[in-house]
Amino acid sequence: MRAVQVVGYHQKLEMTELPIPEPTGPFDVVVKIGGAGVCRTDLHILEGQWAEKSGVTLPYTIGHENAGWVHAVGAAVTHVAEGDKVILHPLITCGLCRACRSGDDVHCEVNAFPGIDTNGGYADYIKTSARSVVRIDDSLEPADVAALADAGLTAYHAAAKAAQRLTPRDRCVVIGAGGLGHIGIQVLKALTPAELVVVDRNEQALKLAESIGADRGIVADGTQVEQVLELTGGHGAEVVIDFVGENGTTAEGLAMTRRAGDYHIVGYGENIDVPSIDLISAEKNIVGNLVGSYNDLCDLMQLAARGAVTLHTAKYSLDDFQSAIDDLNTGNVRGRAILTP
Amino acid sequence: MRAVQVVGYHQKLEMTELPIPEPTGPFDVVVKIGGAGVCRTDLHILEGQWAEKSGVTLPYTIGHENAGWVHAVGAAVTHVAEGDKVILHPLITCGLCRACRSGDDVHCEVNAFPGIDTNGGYADYIKTSARSVVRIDDSLEPADVAALADAGLTAYHAAAKAAQRLTPRDRCVVIGAGGLGHIGIQVLKALTPAELVVVDRNEQALKLAESIGADRGIVADGTQVEQVLELTGGHGAEVVIDFVGENGTTAEGLAMTRRAGDYHIVGYGENIDVPSIDLISAEKNIVGNLVGSYNDLCDLMQLAARGAVTLHTAKYSLDDFQSAIDDLNTGNVRGRAILTP
Amino acid sequence: MRAVQVVGYHQKLEMTELPIPEPTGPFDVVVKIGGAGVCRTDLHILEGQWAEKSGVTLPYTIGHENAGWVHAVGAAVTHVAEGDKVILHPLITCGLCRACRSGDDVHCEVNAFPGIDTNGGYADYIKTSARSVVRIDDSLEPADVAALADAGLTAYHAAAKAAQRLTPRDRCVVIGAGGLGHIGIQVLKALTPAELVVVDRNEQALKLAESIGADRGIVADGTQVEQVLELTGGHGAEVVIDFVGENGTTAEGLAMTRRAGDYHIVGYGENIDVPSIDLISAEKNIVGNLVGSYNDLCDLMQLAARGAVTLHTAKYSLDDFQSAIDDLNTGNVRGRAILTP
Amino acid sequence: MRAVQVVGYHQKLEMTELPIPEPTGPFDVVVKIGGAGVCRTDLHILEGQWAEKSGVTLPYTIGHENAGWVHAVGAAVTHVAEGDKVILHPLITCGLCRACRSGDDVHCEVNAFPGIDTNGGYADYIKTSARSVVRIDDSLEPADVAALADAGLTAYHAAAKAAQRLTPRDRCVVIGAGGLGHIGIQVLKALTPAELVVVDRNEQALKLAESIGADRGIVADGTQVEQVLELTGGHGAEVVIDFVGENGTTAEGLAMTRRAGDYHIVGYGENIDVPSIDLISAEKNIVGNLVGSYNDLCDLMQLAARGAVTLHTAKYSLDDFQSAIDDLNTGNVRGRAILTP
Repeated sequence: MRAVQVVGYHQKLEMTELPIPEPTGPFDVVVKIGGAGVCRTDLHILEGQWAEKSGVTLPYTIGHENAGWVHAVGAAVTHVAEGDKVILHPLITCGLCRACRSGDDVHCEVNAFPGIDTNGGYADYIKTSARSVVRIDDSLEPADVAALADAGLTAYHAAAKAAQRLTPRDRCVVIGAGGLGHIGIQVLKALTPAELVVVDRNEQALKLAESIGADRGIVADGTQVEQVLELTGGHGAEVVIDFVGENGTTAEGLAMTRRAGDYHIVGYGENIDVPSIDLISAEKNIVGNLVGSYNDLCDLMQLAARGAVTLHTAKYSLDDFQSAIDDLNTGNVRGRAILTP
Repeated sequence: MRAVQVVGYHQKLEMTELPIPEPTGPFDVVVKIGGAGVCRTDLHILEGQWAEKSGVTLPYTIGHENAGWVHAVGAAVTHVAEGDKVILHPLITCGLCRACRSGDDVHCEVNAFPGIDTNGGYADYIKTSARSVVRIDDSLEPADVAALADAGLTAYHAAAKAAQRLTPRDRCVVIGAGGLGHIGIQVLKALTPAELVVVDRNEQALKLAESIGADRGIVADGTQVEQVLELTGGHGAEVVIDFVGENGTTAEGLAMTRRAGDYHIVGYGENIDVPSIDLISAEKNIVGNLVGSYNDLCDLMQLAARGAVTLHTAKYSLDDFQSAIDDLNTGNVRGRAILTP
Repeated sequence: MRAVQVVGYHQKLEMTELPIPEPTGPFDVVVKIGGAGVCRTDLHILEGQWAEKSGVTLPYTIGHENAGWVHAVGAAVTHVAEGDKVILHPLITCGLCRACRSGDDVHCEVNAFPGIDTNGGYADYIKTSARSVVRIDDSLEPADVAALADAGLTAYHAAAKAAQRLTPRDRCVVIGAGGLGHIGIQVLKALTPAELVVVDRNEQALKLAESIGADRGIVADGTQVEQVLELTGGHGAEVVIDFVGENGTTAEGLAMTRRAGDYHIVGYGENIDVPSIDLISAEKNIVGNLVGSYNDLCDLMQLAARGAVTLHTAKYSLDDFQSAIDDLNTGNVRGRAILTP
Repeated sequence: MRAVQVVGYHQKLEMTELPIPEPTGPFDVVVKIGGAGVCRTDLHILEGQWAEKSGVTLPYTIGHENAGWVHAVGAAVTHVAEGDKVILHPLITCGLCRACRSGDDVHCEVNAFPGIDTNGGYADYIKTSARSVVRIDDSLEPADVAALADAGLTAYHAAAKAAQRLTPRDRCVVIGAGGLGHIGIQVLKALTPAELVVVDRNEQALKLAESIGADRGIVADGTQVEQVLELTGGHGAEVVIDFVGENGTTAEGLAMTRRAGDYHIVGYGENIDVPSIDLISAEKNIVGNLVGSYNDLCDLMQLAARGAVTLHTAKYSLDDFQSAIDDLNTGNVRGRAILTP
């Protein structure tokens, strides 16, 4: 089969020919790739930013947002069968550690991360685990949902956590209406009655945000904190979800957060640097957010099946992987780039 | 009656004679002071640190940790009567804003804070509200519990929030076994089955901590983070409560916190300065903590009534207020200094 | 002013002339009635069913679903002013008991219930408390929302409690698409992404339910339990909300509830009679539901303001109160009957 | 190896010789039995009460409360190794269904129940799954903790659920200080600061209850409801846990439950028969309770390791199984009967 591999850092990816993986363990699942998301993290991998952290041995196949059809299963797998349409949770988890036993599998103590530290999905086939495959609705196509496997799942997870405390009288500020924010807004719309206020530098992005559920858009022109405070009687919003996490959004986000409110950090880049007295005197919380759990992915796929969450995608054939990488690098992808067979 | 007042910043407190306050509103309650805590905040007030923030007009009576006996009540007050022993919640709250209606009264939008922005308890009598008085058990003496009204209540609040998620398999690290930490440890012991690990520079404080419920003490000699990690299989503790908040404890506390864990900030002083990626990749939360609610104070008084939370106090007569201030300033108070009639 | 009073049980209501009430206490609020709901409970009152329970002294003014405009306020009232449009929470609560201090004011230990045990709203004016008035949006008219004060608030409360656990993959069965169910469906639609399945004997009611948010209607023709089980893979629904509570719905509702699921009882009439082994072996919960809190009413009014919850009403002038009662008695009211000035 | 089997209903158990089971699947674990609890359910099995429900094929080995040492493991098992001391969760669960993925494994859709529907632990060895074994502390002996595997786990689960809402001001009534209640009291003492009130017919049992943590004992002499109401100012307790569930305790337990309180049903026998209006007007909840999850068992073992939960046991050698059964049948076992090698 074809597989696109990292052969060295600061080098281009290379396509090679590999044998189709086979289930060797009883819970192995081999999936024929229908769509593999091309993510900014892939660019960072090529720059070597993940080399030490992942400890991966080169060459290996890149690609961590994958969906497709079950091709073969290990002897103990009964909940999916050959031909089933599936999306893949980004992690392969153990199922036995305390985190896994608590439904909090992203904190599995012995996980693997295909596309990051083992072979991923820029290929014709990928081997994963029974614990990582989620059947998707007949109405969904793998190439259309692949990017929900990681980017979308992260947005879902933060939005669902935030929604737990949001009531009809609350405001939820979303900072950043880009890839993750775009999904976060759709999820929040489905999960919570709170008023959704979206902050972004880009007026086009705000228009799009309003078309998919945002109640109000605020242009980040330097007055965004004041605008949020004005909108909320000077108090700030009960919840702020920061999908950016750089260029000053962390301080702004905290300033937009009401007393006893939650500031969710999802995007990252800069340091959060806040006087401890400020968190205490207003009793604010800073809530970390990682990618979602297997259950989160099942819930997200349910929303996708009913059309409540959709993604713009730009499809490239697997053979044309370099164009996808180049377009992403130069900012020429509208929506998410997806490699298809 | 006697009242000790702030007459100017960077000046000594002065005792003066004032009329005994009377209930003028229907929910007013006048309390004869049995004990008034002398708190480090009182020193900061004299230094002018609160002048702008409180906007108080001088002179006014200082003292925000108060307990005593009900002396007179307004026409609408029925839940306490003259002679009842009471402790005073530090805030006078409105009862009508959303925070008050939600049991979250410390975030009342129109509160008053006796001893900070209106007349407090270094006096023979204080006027407060029906919403602020908590009856205490017959077995308790006002002078013994007064310091629980603010310092103790803050520790209770953080400990009770933390306890919500703690199970028998969890560890809770308490940073700082001083005034607040001392109470926090007793509360945690009463509320949670988690293993309590206390970190302090002072070996004496750790010994005391172990005598009141800490399962383990760790001397903060520069290896405290390593020691906590070693104790927890390299993972860190599910919950860390930082009663210090300066001299590096915030970074240390976060480093001691396990993936998906909560770092509670209670003490303050330094900035929390953390890379956003660190909070995200380990999905840690930073939880702000303010003083507790009226309900928290009721709960704390229940623990005090059964002897589960006790305080060391050093009592001074009201006339001798300057000695108490001086001793606190020079570090010569063992436990909490309390003014008594 | 005009007031319609209960002058004896098994007798007709009588209109009389009374002085306009005045604020006598500092937190009193007098409201000019804009709409007063005519509720089936009013019929039960006339039948004497509430005589012993309420202990009310006759004659008194009936009517417990009230909205209007603030006419006069006591000295301590600052959060509403003359002319404000308001809806009235059905209870007058103390604000000081543990339930009130916890936001759980419907369990207030010393409440009054206008229209039931003190003068209500079939009148030109009503006296209530500052704690009971909720300002409503300019776009809403008192006569249009009055019936949300009690019937609507009960439906909101149950739906909001149920929504806490509902995810996109869950099903919520609503038994009864009548008055309360009608509002419950709208609230659930706003608060939760779960699939809403509505069960009712009346096909017209199901059609209406589907037009306001139900995903699926099931005719209660004797096969309703089987239909719900079939729809849910034989497992039953995660949540069932029973707005009927008689004619066998309680046993049916429990049978429709999945393992570890919640059966909410809202309507009443029959006994719940279930083998204890059934609750244990499937670990089901039976959740009681009373009218909502003040906070619930604020949330509901927010939904009403944005048009997410609407009611069909049939308006009668206050002078024509007997027609409203008669029409309700004979089943000739479409939607809710409302008395207007 | 020796194995004691059900060979027919209404017949005596028979000991037979079977091959030692071997791990055939990758996650199989074979455990050498150190202790097997003899439970009243075993008597019911012999009476045929479980025949239809379990669908088990005779003969099979009885015994569902098991602990011992790991004897052999399948190829994929890494979290336990030969020689480890373990206790066995009563269920073998799939790990892949929604319940398992949510940490709620007792509701696993495809579980097996050794001792009930497949071979159990009245034997020298038992085969179970990696998902079912919990390592226990070196200080614990299998024969001492075996009965915690099912009876103890059920009590833990109910107590831990109840503890979630209990504060220092609350009362928790425990009905029944027998086998389950005895453990429930110890767990509640460890997990919650609420006042524990224990109701039992037997004064000796109440004395024992008080010695292990009950704050107060009430003899069930017909006045128990009145006594609980008196103790609670006429209101009832915030939580009632009924470990009996027959002879009228369900009605009594509900009558002892405060407005907005929780009545937990754990023991079973009679029907719960309650007017729906009673649950609604007081907004009470009836909470079903099944055996605990794997996580619950881990937590309980942590409490056992520190001596916070202990059991009285009467040990019998496996060869002497009939004496244990006879003694249980005639009420001559003090504590729990345990079969040992």
